Amino acid sequence: MVQMAKSLRIGLAQINSCVGDLERNVSKIVKTIDEARDKGVEIVCFPEMSIPGYPAEDLLLKPSFIRDNLDALEEIKSASKSITVIVGFIDRGEDIFNAAAVIQDGELIDVYHKHYLPNYGVFDENRYFQRGRTAKVYKLGDVFLGVNICEDIWYPGDPTRLQAVLGNAKVILNISASPYHAAKAIARQRMLATRARDYSTIIVFTNLVGGQDELVFDGNSVVLDEKGEIIARAPAFEEKLLIADTYPVMVFRSRLHDPRRRKEQSTLFYEGHEKPQVVHLERLNGAGNSPPPQPPDIANEVCSFPASEEEEIWKALVLGTRDYVWKNGFSKAVIGISGGIDSALVAAVACEALGHENVTGLSMPSMYSSQGSIDDAKTLSANLKMELITIPIEKVYRSYLDVLTDRFKGTDPGTAEENIQARIRGNLLMALSNKFGWLVLTTANKSETSVGYTTLYGDMAGGFAVIKDVPKTLVYSLAEFYNERRGKEVIPRSIIQKPPSPELHPDQKDVDTLPPYEVLDAILKGYVEDDLSKEDLLSLGHPEELVKNVIKMVDSNEYKRRQAPPGIKITPRAFGKDRRFPITNRYRG
Amino acid sequence: MVQMAKSLRIGLAQINSCVGDLERNVSKIVKTIDEARDKGVEIVCFPEMSIPGYPAEDLLLKPSFIRDNLDALEEIKSASKSITVIVGFIDRGEDIFNAAAVIQDGELIDVYHKHYLPNYGVFDENRYFQRGRTAKVYKLGDVFLGVNICEDIWYPGDPTRLQAVLGNAKVILNISASPYHAAKAIARQRMLATRARDYSTIIVFTNLVGGQDELVFDGNSVVLDEKGEIIARAPAFEEKLLIADTYPVMVFRSRLHDPRRRKEQSTLFYEGHEKPQVVHLERLNGAGNSPPPQPPDIANEVCSFPASEEEEIWKALVLGTRDYVWKNGFSKAVIGISGGIDSALVAAVACEALGHENVTGLSMPSMYSSQGSIDDAKTLSANLKMELITIPIEKVYRSYLDVLTDRFKGTDPGTAEENIQARIRGNLLMALSNKFGWLVLTTANKSETSVGYTTLYGDMAGGFAVIKDVPKTLVYSLAEFYNERRGKEVIPRSIIQKPPSPELHPDQKDVDTLPPYEVLDAILKGYVEDDLSKEDLLSLGHPEELVKNVIKMVDSNEYKRRQAPPGIKITPRAFGKDRRFPITNRYRG
Repeated sequence: MVQMAKSLRIGLAQINSCVGDLERNVSKIVKTIDEARDKGVEIVCFPEMSIPGYPAEDLLLKPSFIRDNLDALEEIKSASKSITVIVGFIDRGEDIFNAAAVIQDGELIDVYHKHYLPNYGVFDENRYFQRGRTAKVYKLGDVFLGVNICEDIWYPGDPTRLQAVLGNAKVILNISASPYHAAKAIARQRMLATRARDYSTIIVFTNLVGGQDELVFDGNSVVLDEKGEIIARAPAFEEKLLIADTYPVMVFRSRLHDPRRRKEQSTLFYEGHEKPQVVHLERLNGAGNSPPPQPPDIANEVCSFPASEEEEIWKALVLGTRDYVWKNGFSKAVIGISGGIDSALVAAVACEALGHENVTGLSMPSMYSSQGSIDDAKTLSANLKMELITIPIEKVYRSYLDVLTDRFKGTDPGTAEENIQARIRGNLLMALSNKFGWLVLTTANKSETSVGYTTLYGDMAGGFAVIKDVPKTLVYSLAEFYNERRGKEVIPRSIIQKPPSPELHPDQKDVDTLPPYEVLDAILKGYVEDDLSKEDLLSLGHPEELVKNVIKMVDSNEYKRRQAPPGIKITPRAFGKDRRFPITNRYRG
Repeated sequence: MVQMAKSLRIGLAQINSCVGDLERNVSKIVKTIDEARDKGVEIVCFPEMSIPGYPAEDLLLKPSFIRDNLDALEEIKSASKSITVIVGFIDRGEDIFNAAAVIQDGELIDVYHKHYLPNYGVFDENRYFQRGRTAKVYKLGDVFLGVNICEDIWYPGDPTRLQAVLGNAKVILNISASPYHAAKAIARQRMLATRARDYSTIIVFTNLVGGQDELVFDGNSVVLDEKGEIIARAPAFEEKLLIADTYPVMVFRSRLHDPRRRKEQSTLFYEGHEKPQVVHLERLNGAGNSPPPQPPDIANEVCSFPASEEEEIWKALVLGTRDYVWKNGFSKAVIGISGGIDSALVAAVACEALGHENVTGLSMPSMYSSQGSIDDAKTLSANLKMELITIPIEKVYRSYLDVLTDRFKGTDPGTAEENIQARIRGNLLMALSNKFGWLVLTTANKSETSVGYTTLYGDMAGGFAVIKDVPKTLVYSLAEFYNERRGKEVIPRSIIQKPPSPELHPDQKDVDTLPPYEVLDAILKGYVEDDLSKEDLLSLGHPEELVKNVIKMVDSNEYKRRQAPPGIKITPRAFGKDRRFPITNRYRG
């Protein structure tokens, strides 16, 4: 028996919450509720933890923070006249819970507690939360709804099964704070489509957007119908109140409940669960009670995914940088511009994120800097319309060598002398930062960060490492993407074409120390991202000496990475919270 | 019915494993097994994770590491002729487990999987392990034994209850990697005594010893009888094969099983558990099978706890420093010696940890350094018999001001200029480190680290932050303790008495910026260690302006701490893995 329901207008408030800024988050939520109400939305969903921000980490251990978040929930309740609101917050009982409040017309109707607490990768939810164990359904007029949170929908089975199959929910409202890595949005949408089809339910997935330290939340909120087809989709990396008119189909699931089918569908049916409790909601919107005034039909909007992986990553870098800067109270940034590709890409990202008038380049040539690099730094800055300051470091460098003469007597120049130069540059960048309040953006890419081809307190000195998770080979593709998008060679061709060099001693090239980046990046992906062993890497055809050497470099440079600034995660495994290695570690393999 | 058992000689191998050094760990374990066998030990226990080291963090995600650890277990099996060995390793099934192998006479008899996986504070065990759900008992001759792991014994109830009460175990062998903080050993022993009394069982607690990044494991392995009285105790902060002759009493627990008592002892009895499975072991020792040759009686050794909290913390700092240095392949260290109390204490720790011949002090006076400080640095170094190099920084500093003249024109000297000096010192220390392979030890204490009264890439530059978790007030007590212990003022009185100052501008004192340390440390303990809110701190009588200011300083300096070197945890909550705050965090309170 199938019956068409009236349309149900749902709002997906893809907002950019800021961790700890309860006042700002609440005011954003309230403003969005008002907008949703004006547009005839009956239910508006906000992301997981949109009140406190996500991840709040050890702020969650502070009783006052939990209390203030509950006070903030009260404000949202009061603002929810004549509308239904699903909003993520921290619930407090005998323990704390990652929770969704179901609010209607100024009243807290129910609270859902997240079942699956991710505790891998960048996630530490078992550190904080107690898991939920019940899942209800909400009856809104004729329509049953289920609410769950992020990870809950990533696994087949409960709570989604319980809500959709046993509870007859025709709409699952999942609120998420699902962080970005390259190509994740497509994989996530495929997973959501599977859930929609398997449980024959509409899926409304509302995701957080914005940067938080190492993480970027990509948004890409989406509504899928019972066949897994897209009804509406929000853009990537932007705030949006996405409004979707849905038409939940009332199937009475006699077929699914046929006992002869239970074996075949064993993944759908767990033993020992009862039908979920039903909580009644009113159909409300705008001025009055049910039946709601029929709103004018809207055209459901379906935003496109970025056209290429480069575009997607570019947008992640821009948003991650912009949000780190303003959320930490900065507006301007300074970057050491060497004339190489890494600092060129970082400068391009920064100019797009902050505006070129808010970015200053600092060129710090030494006697080992090539004229080509000095010129390239100038051309780049002119192309980006970014101020460029030049401070040669040779005099300062000589003053160090002077005071160290006695001690260094009889030794050959080497890493010590090279690092002094890099650290003079770090000191100058920080001097400008301290004097003028500019945030220093660092320029080390993932390949260098992996093998420690960076100077601690030198080129690693700064507040935010924009391309820390971008392998060198991808740095090149992003530079090409950027030029293409701008329709001109904003990043000069000579920067893209010159052989990479730190220019810390005469005629130095990266390839003197490292294998070509195509080779290095392939090994690094295997070792760092895929946990391949030495044997695994050899069986892929990489030469033994090289593999051993790369593994040794990665392992023995953990101490540097531990002191590195945070940077934006764009791969499935970034350095930082995502990869937690001991510094003291004598394992090689 | 009570029956005296024959004595059971147990070895507690309080060893210092190194994370990832499987070869060294195995050879240490095998050597200790041999020693135990020679001394007539029937059962020798090794700490939790003694094969891979603890905590191995994301090494545990590497399949090759798990495999190599299992290979290492094979070696230990082969070395276990005529003796019973309990040893911590990573077990692999459908998932991985924090496990104890029960090995006898070259055979793996059984494997126990840890039930309680700590996932708070410094621990992340849910990130890696699946929890165990069964607990057996082992029948060795007449005696039933239970084996469990660390956290398992911290909670009343199962698995200890199951093993001791339902399984009749008269000896519980708990293997641990329980990290140090001040006064923890006494609290831990009190907890163990409670378990021993509640379950009327002998407790054999074998703990890891040694430093691993931020953690120090304190040893303090102990054997308690059924009344909670100490039978034997190993020293704190040292390796030891502690041997204890125990006399397990065979009580058949009719009294405990009296149903009239169940209500009173409800914490001891859970519903729904069955008697644990019994696995039979042989009584073995030395040359042959049971009955074992009666070994000559030994006098059970009971080592003392350190005489004061200062002595205990001192030993933790020395062991933590020594282990960080050698486990990371260093043998020598260099320290910036300012003439202040912090660097004096760090130098004293380093000289004791590494030998004074392996420690170099670097004095880097500027025009703002007082003659007193310069002289104190010399006296201290002479007293410690530590080499002191002097490199004045004024010329280098002037060269920076020179190149920055244009940019800094019209600005007042301030933090930027001060930090340049600190960063010159950081650069010089790192230059010596890079040139000669010396590890730089940094000198910031917990008070400074909390409020950010440190210079990133300046005095924070270095590999290991010895007193990072030591509040300034405790720095003074430790200096007094050290002098008293040495019987002379090795740390000159003038260093202890002078008002603290960073000496980065004329006549600067810490109290110009910070409240007196007695006041500051009390607020910091409340805010950082006890999660007190602003209101809580005000209700303790601290002035409002001060509290707000301190909270703001702590919160807004997370970015510095994220780039700080690791240091030794000595309080219940240290910075680092123990306190995980977001950098981007707009919460104040």
